[in-house]
Amino acid sequence: MAAAGYKLHTGRSRNEQIATDLRLFVRASIDTLQELLANWIDVLLTRAERAGSAAMPAYTHLQPAEPVLVAHWLLAYVQMFFRDADRLADCRKRTNLCPLGSGAVAGATLTINRQAMAAELGFDGPTANSMDATSDRDFAIEFVNSLSQLALHLSRWAEEMILFSTPAYGFVELPEPYSTGSSAMPQKKNPDLLELVRGKAARVMGCASTLQTLVKGLPLAYNKDLQETQEPLFDASDTLMSMLPLVTGWMQTVEFNETRMNQAASTGFMNAWAAAAYLVERGVPSRLAHEAIGKAVQLAVERGCDLQKLPLADLQAIHPSFDAAFHSRLGLPEVLALHDVPGGTAPRHVKRALQNARERAASLRAHEPLTVR
Amino acid sequence: MAAAGYKLHTGRSRNEQIATDLRLFVRASIDTLQELLANWIDVLLTRAERAGSAAMPAYTHLQPAEPVLVAHWLLAYVQMFFRDADRLADCRKRTNLCPLGSGAVAGATLTINRQAMAAELGFDGPTANSMDATSDRDFAIEFVNSLSQLALHLSRWAEEMILFSTPAYGFVELPEPYSTGSSAMPQKKNPDLLELVRGKAARVMGCASTLQTLVKGLPLAYNKDLQETQEPLFDASDTLMSMLPLVTGWMQTVEFNETRMNQAASTGFMNAWAAAAYLVERGVPSRLAHEAIGKAVQLAVERGCDLQKLPLADLQAIHPSFDAAFHSRLGLPEVLALHDVPGGTAPRHVKRALQNARERAASLRAHEPLTVR
Amino acid sequence: MAAAGYKLHTGRSRNEQIATDLRLFVRASIDTLQELLANWIDVLLTRAERAGSAAMPAYTHLQPAEPVLVAHWLLAYVQMFFRDADRLADCRKRTNLCPLGSGAVAGATLTINRQAMAAELGFDGPTANSMDATSDRDFAIEFVNSLSQLALHLSRWAEEMILFSTPAYGFVELPEPYSTGSSAMPQKKNPDLLELVRGKAARVMGCASTLQTLVKGLPLAYNKDLQETQEPLFDASDTLMSMLPLVTGWMQTVEFNETRMNQAASTGFMNAWAAAAYLVERGVPSRLAHEAIGKAVQLAVERGCDLQKLPLADLQAIHPSFDAAFHSRLGLPEVLALHDVPGGTAPRHVKRALQNARERAASLRAHEPLTVR
Amino acid sequence: MAAAGYKLHTGRSRNEQIATDLRLFVRASIDTLQELLANWIDVLLTRAERAGSAAMPAYTHLQPAEPVLVAHWLLAYVQMFFRDADRLADCRKRTNLCPLGSGAVAGATLTINRQAMAAELGFDGPTANSMDATSDRDFAIEFVNSLSQLALHLSRWAEEMILFSTPAYGFVELPEPYSTGSSAMPQKKNPDLLELVRGKAARVMGCASTLQTLVKGLPLAYNKDLQETQEPLFDASDTLMSMLPLVTGWMQTVEFNETRMNQAASTGFMNAWAAAAYLVERGVPSRLAHEAIGKAVQLAVERGCDLQKLPLADLQAIHPSFDAAFHSRLGLPEVLALHDVPGGTAPRHVKRALQNARERAASLRAHEPLTVR
Repeated sequence: MAAAGYKLHTGRSRNEQIATDLRLFVRASIDTLQELLANWIDVLLTRAERAGSAAMPAYTHLQPAEPVLVAHWLLAYVQMFFRDADRLADCRKRTNLCPLGSGAVAGATLTINRQAMAAELGFDGPTANSMDATSDRDFAIEFVNSLSQLALHLSRWAEEMILFSTPAYGFVELPEPYSTGSSAMPQKKNPDLLELVRGKAARVMGCASTLQTLVKGLPLAYNKDLQETQEPLFDASDTLMSMLPLVTGWMQTVEFNETRMNQAASTGFMNAWAAAAYLVERGVPSRLAHEAIGKAVQLAVERGCDLQKLPLADLQAIHPSFDAAFHSRLGLPEVLALHDVPGGTAPRHVKRALQNARERAASLRAHEPLTVR
Repeated sequence: MAAAGYKLHTGRSRNEQIATDLRLFVRASIDTLQELLANWIDVLLTRAERAGSAAMPAYTHLQPAEPVLVAHWLLAYVQMFFRDADRLADCRKRTNLCPLGSGAVAGATLTINRQAMAAELGFDGPTANSMDATSDRDFAIEFVNSLSQLALHLSRWAEEMILFSTPAYGFVELPEPYSTGSSAMPQKKNPDLLELVRGKAARVMGCASTLQTLVKGLPLAYNKDLQETQEPLFDASDTLMSMLPLVTGWMQTVEFNETRMNQAASTGFMNAWAAAAYLVERGVPSRLAHEAIGKAVQLAVERGCDLQKLPLADLQAIHPSFDAAFHSRLGLPEVLALHDVPGGTAPRHVKRALQNARERAASLRAHEPLTVR
Repeated sequence: MAAAGYKLHTGRSRNEQIATDLRLFVRASIDTLQELLANWIDVLLTRAERAGSAAMPAYTHLQPAEPVLVAHWLLAYVQMFFRDADRLADCRKRTNLCPLGSGAVAGATLTINRQAMAAELGFDGPTANSMDATSDRDFAIEFVNSLSQLALHLSRWAEEMILFSTPAYGFVELPEPYSTGSSAMPQKKNPDLLELVRGKAARVMGCASTLQTLVKGLPLAYNKDLQETQEPLFDASDTLMSMLPLVTGWMQTVEFNETRMNQAASTGFMNAWAAAAYLVERGVPSRLAHEAIGKAVQLAVERGCDLQKLPLADLQAIHPSFDAAFHSRLGLPEVLALHDVPGGTAPRHVKRALQNARERAASLRAHEPLTVR
Repeated sequence: MAAAGYKLHTGRSRNEQIATDLRLFVRASIDTLQELLANWIDVLLTRAERAGSAAMPAYTHLQPAEPVLVAHWLLAYVQMFFRDADRLADCRKRTNLCPLGSGAVAGATLTINRQAMAAELGFDGPTANSMDATSDRDFAIEFVNSLSQLALHLSRWAEEMILFSTPAYGFVELPEPYSTGSSAMPQKKNPDLLELVRGKAARVMGCASTLQTLVKGLPLAYNKDLQETQEPLFDASDTLMSMLPLVTGWMQTVEFNETRMNQAASTGFMNAWAAAAYLVERGVPSRLAHEAIGKAVQLAVERGCDLQKLPLADLQAIHPSFDAAFHSRLGLPEVLALHDVPGGTAPRHVKRALQNARERAASLRAHEPLTVR
């Protein structure tokens, strides 16, 4: 690094230099991570497209609540990672300023062109204050905080994949190359990668915590404590750089058991909300409609059948507004279509959401900033 | 909150509602905090302007390194708080989307206009996915992470003010209304507010840590754990809202002892770097120049005098390039002027930096977004 | 608090007084928490006893691995809470020393009997150094760190109960008073308490983090930052005090579906390890035995049957050491009994473990220290 | 590691083995750290002894409060490190139990003598429950939490040493081998080691945070996330192992400027409390005594002199109880002697405290447990 003839031993200080190097590192890391994120989002979108009309239960409190399209579920994750890409882009703006020329603390004592030096290294401009520039690690903290949020999203995704790959759910067939068997227990396949991904979130959060604790109460300007910012910064960056391609590969090769997913989406009274909506449509006040469906569910549980198998007579005994159209409203396609708002799981909205996401994903790549490395 | 006739018991879920309320809270908090930050920055700038040509030591490793203008020192803090304002503005963009219409998890089942509802509540638009919208607390995490960085900046400022108000430094006269005396020790005045500000950084960091730990590994979508996001979110926001006006008031009333600051800036060989720069200018290679000045400092220490009091003959015995101009280069004004780069402490650059900061501070207020409350 | 005539305004300082008050608070909290822990452990033991010979799968990587007694599973948690009780007792020793007489920083200036004062307040003795005594918050940090570990144990317990109460597992019937239904989705019962317990672990960890960050780099002795130790200390203590009775009540009223548990323990090839052990017993080297069982499991999967349903001829085609005794070794009782070591799930060892735990739990109560309040 | 013939591939599982290895690591680390702590405490005690009757200001709120013996100040740190040694010893008890024989999750299936195996490896006994033993990392968390407290103590010590080595204080002469100079600023010596020690506290706290976050909400038993416990565990241990000998060496070679310390202890009205005590002794109510001394300090500040230089007449004008004995009570030795309680800074109590600490330090070494390595 020898910008604009500003060389070591001609007045440059270690303090400004290390600050510059760390900013270059964060900028390059962000650019690489943006690419890895784009790949990861692409695979999520491809899997969402391939899932077609397959459905699954959506859970609240981990209890099955309502059916959703598998694509809708995967698009929830896509939104999280879009936010991560946004946050990294915002962090890049604040990172991409050049401390060179700040000297040890009071500014360089040579006649130098800081603007030119900054430009030569691909920075958007020079930093504004020498004392701040040599003692500031905001860019590192903000970067690792962003990575921490990204890692949290991955941990949620990993948790769901771990759950869904257990025999109790059976939605996900663990891909061989990312799992381990047990010689002692040949019936088992362990989701090692997913568990590590979940665990790594703790590690990145630990890095973020260390970085912030380090600068608390530090007087200006440079203090040697700041040397300790390097390892957690590098570690958090390395962790995400190695995790993203692995989860991308996992997602490319995983197999969803759509039969089990669809079956789970069609049972367990997940059409209860749709049933109440049907009554509301018929003019029954919302509270009464839900009460009536509550009784109907009760009855179906006692009889060991689904809601749509209850005879009309029994339903009408619960509430007179039930009619022959009821049963045709409780099928999986009808229930899905009922959530007919932008952002809802109705297939036509999911289709549009997929298109929007594809466009945004493409623009992520298009806007990827040029970096001098 | 009853946007576009979308009322409770007509299909709205607690899950979407709480997500909406929390986003409204974060948005309003950001808007208030931006105003408080603008006031705080204004006071820092006013104090920097009032400091005029007063100088003080800049420290690295807490050891006196080089003299800087008091204004230059205060401008270092201004830069930190500009970044905080930026981060909050970026966080606001991602916060200001409306979850209403997401239902419990799969999307609303009523025909509603999410775009209109969002606009009515001052949101930039609706959220894109119902499962994400009801389980996402990114906006809260990003907000509290930003507050944590802001609190860290305040803790550094507080640390310096605590230090500089001790008799050992004596740069700062603690303002009575923000300090306590000791009936038992009448000679003492305690910087209680500053210590609390320093301590509160730990509290806000704890809130940020709780928020992130909460969502680690949470499966989609809403889980009751998320209820625990409320207290740390409110607490971090309240903490900053009460701290900013206090530090603003403190800074308005504090008195700087410019005599002691100038004196400290003029002693302790803080012109050693300038002395070396003088030799470099005369063609002495950088390394040799610093070596020569090292010897000169040694000599001055032995004689108990400042560098500029050494007779020319003794200096020339150390290196032949010293000449009569030397002594006139070591005064405080000359040393300050030497750091003649943008971002350096040379008075003409500090003056320009002040102007730039004033403009940016004004635009902070100008761009303050309108909020429906 | 007016020990041994040592009254305010006769030389006592706020610094020693607040340190004393906080120690009294921690000591009283520990004593109460020990009682709550003892109640909680008692209920776990009662449920373990009542579970009798019921079995369930033990999971590794959340995949079913081997069958264990339900009692064995509950005893795993009992061990964790024994450690928590131990840690609190150790923390109490270090807490129970009296700072009174330390003055503001240098020691009291009145002739007082610190030993007598300490004894009067139930302390084990006076603290040893006035500067340390007035600036030390180790006891608070150690206490909240211990609570954090306790909360982590509760979070693991809550996670399992949440999982096991989903329809996918169906081992646990959520107790009505600790759960909420959904008017909109009458088929659902939500494990609110369990989710809050899981979430509260994050809160207590945040308190622990705040406390530690607060004292980092604080010079001696008392600094006002220490005032901020109070809220996280009180909050962590309150959180555990309210959680423990709730989980105790939950555990008293929860119903285990032993039929589903036993069934899950009897299927899914969880006798594969036992099958290999059978071969090893017949002289087959361990590695080969596991290989052979791997093939047998494969065959059984293809045939859609359990291991013990494979005809002897097919088994012998895999390895000649299989004989007629094989099938009788694969029943649930035989598989459980096979883990015949102290700490293993063989019923005779679980019975002994239960007795040991009962004795230890009784001694917890017996040794509960007397506190002056 | 092949205890009691219990070899790999004869039924031993990786899960029990890794748990055993980690416990052996923690136990060995504790034993080494106890030795390093004993050395560190010895040096602190030696320096306290060598400080003799040298005094210095004690600070509260970083403002000079009262004079104390330098030995008294160093003994404050000794108390902290005694607590650390205690905590590590308590952690060792809970660590030193042997998981071998726990199998993968349900207990070993071979006839083995767990008691003998445990004894052979120097453990106090076997762990009590196989599911707990293979999924428990309490010992690692408790260990790193203890290290975190130790690191916090070192950070406080480092902070004070950094402060006291600045020209503003000048109490401490930085030892050459542990500091760096600046070729550019020959007047400077930087306390690099101390700053790193202060910074490393953040790192160890980050490790503790990662470890705890990792296990939050983990279902039983072994999950691969636990692999991530290893790096923070090793890192925290390594960090303390390298820091303790360095601070020990630093403390052995540092030079205290006792002249400056004594001078600082004798000025700045630090005898104000003693002056009030003198009046109280004469029957003046405490509040009035402090008021009177407040006025006297005011007067002395105006006259630019110390309290003991005020003429008796002027004092009696403030309060009639002043008499000729007053001035002889305000010398440094008299003020120190006034704090005449155990734990106070009166020289006779500091002498006894030193003896007590020496005895306790010796017993630390004596009780150091034997370890099989």
